[in-house]
Amino acid sequence: MSAEAPILGIRALFFDVFGTLVDFRTSVAREAERLLAPTGHKLDWLGFANAWRGEYQPALEEVRSGRQPYVKLDVLHRQNLERLLPRFGLRSLPDATLRELTLAWHRLDAWPEVPAAMARLKTKFLLAPLSNGNISLMVDLARRNQFPWDAILGADIARDFKPKPRVYLAACEALDLAPEQCMLVAAHSNDLAAAAALGLRTAHVARPNEHGPNTGETAPSVPVDVAGRDLADLADKLEA
Amino acid sequence: MSAEAPILGIRALFFDVFGTLVDFRTSVAREAERLLAPTGHKLDWLGFANAWRGEYQPALEEVRSGRQPYVKLDVLHRQNLERLLPRFGLRSLPDATLRELTLAWHRLDAWPEVPAAMARLKTKFLLAPLSNGNISLMVDLARRNQFPWDAILGADIARDFKPKPRVYLAACEALDLAPEQCMLVAAHSNDLAAAAALGLRTAHVARPNEHGPNTGETAPSVPVDVAGRDLADLADKLEA
Repeated sequence: MSAEAPILGIRALFFDVFGTLVDFRTSVAREAERLLAPTGHKLDWLGFANAWRGEYQPALEEVRSGRQPYVKLDVLHRQNLERLLPRFGLRSLPDATLRELTLAWHRLDAWPEVPAAMARLKTKFLLAPLSNGNISLMVDLARRNQFPWDAILGADIARDFKPKPRVYLAACEALDLAPEQCMLVAAHSNDLAAAAALGLRTAHVARPNEHGPNTGETAPSVPVDVAGRDLADLADKLEA
Repeated sequence: MSAEAPILGIRALFFDVFGTLVDFRTSVAREAERLLAPTGHKLDWLGFANAWRGEYQPALEEVRSGRQPYVKLDVLHRQNLERLLPRFGLRSLPDATLRELTLAWHRLDAWPEVPAAMARLKTKFLLAPLSNGNISLMVDLARRNQFPWDAILGADIARDFKPKPRVYLAACEALDLAPEQCMLVAAHSNDLAAAAALGLRTAHVARPNEHGPNTGETAPSVPVDVAGRDLADLADKLEA
């Protein structure tokens, strides 16, 4: 296999979003402080963001296991928020505040190099999120960060959550592509392993500071087709 | 109600695509000639395009009625093509030709004013197709014609075809919007009437030459919120 082999025949790049393209930790912390500090609340804002994210996988698992019917991630974010509040001494927040706070996840900022790298990748590949986030959330992040999506794929069109196989396969089918014509880009080895098991190509992006300094994956722990220090480096390696 | 009332509170524009944004008749005729003329076929290419489109509603009705399960429009276009061939003296075309010919519907050109008008509308509204065309078809038309979609909505996410109510409502729900915050833009009064019955706002665009000179709707035959001579005129009226 030549050095160029990883990109041969790839038509679409699918992206994990939370952590891979956007920095949810500092963005959620900023939004929480913006919404709660004016009414006198003083929290460890970054700790609050990580704790909220910590409720994410258990909530998804309720749906993946079939114990709960599919609901969009916004609904789970709200439920998780309400579960979290007592732990941070936040009781009886107005419903309007809870609604706005849940929308913090629609206002996440991209890691700095992402918008320019995405514009390069757009010239060579079809681009779509393959995220557990719902369509409206993906649309808002795209408008905020200039993500030039060709379509919004992922959980909402499959009505299940990664790493369930259906979510990856529904994305390939939506574009009429075979799995080997599609590449998942993610900062999380478990996501990439699930995609590879279905025949998709895989690209790892290092996000060493995902949950705080030196908390994220600096390299994949599973075999991948290509790995980048960040999305700009990945774009270089995909010759975009 | 003031003259500006139709645009108040509208957050998203949904678009019918075939006929409204793209000229399927001359585009399909061009593609058929490109693919079939080199092997000696001589057809009334425009008549062939209209005849193919003529099979469209009966095929959709099989799905809408529940007699057939949902399949993407590409599959119906292929079935309709095979039904049509004997009528045009086209027998035993190679499978590769039939596949390429079916993809004629992915290579339709926009009516001339559409791309620039869409760019204006993008600054003011969320934009999504609300078409019976499948996601991959919509993606290809968008790349070809610079349609700046925020998301691809329509039949594929609802798994049914317009004018079934579920298709319109699934689009509103995907963006977390109430029907009255959404406006359907279409050149077909029946489509607009179905949307209006569900509470969506409606905009008519005249396409007098849809199936040939003076064959299309020059004005809506049902009440609408706004009507444009073309999409540029509609953008003016929506103050985009």
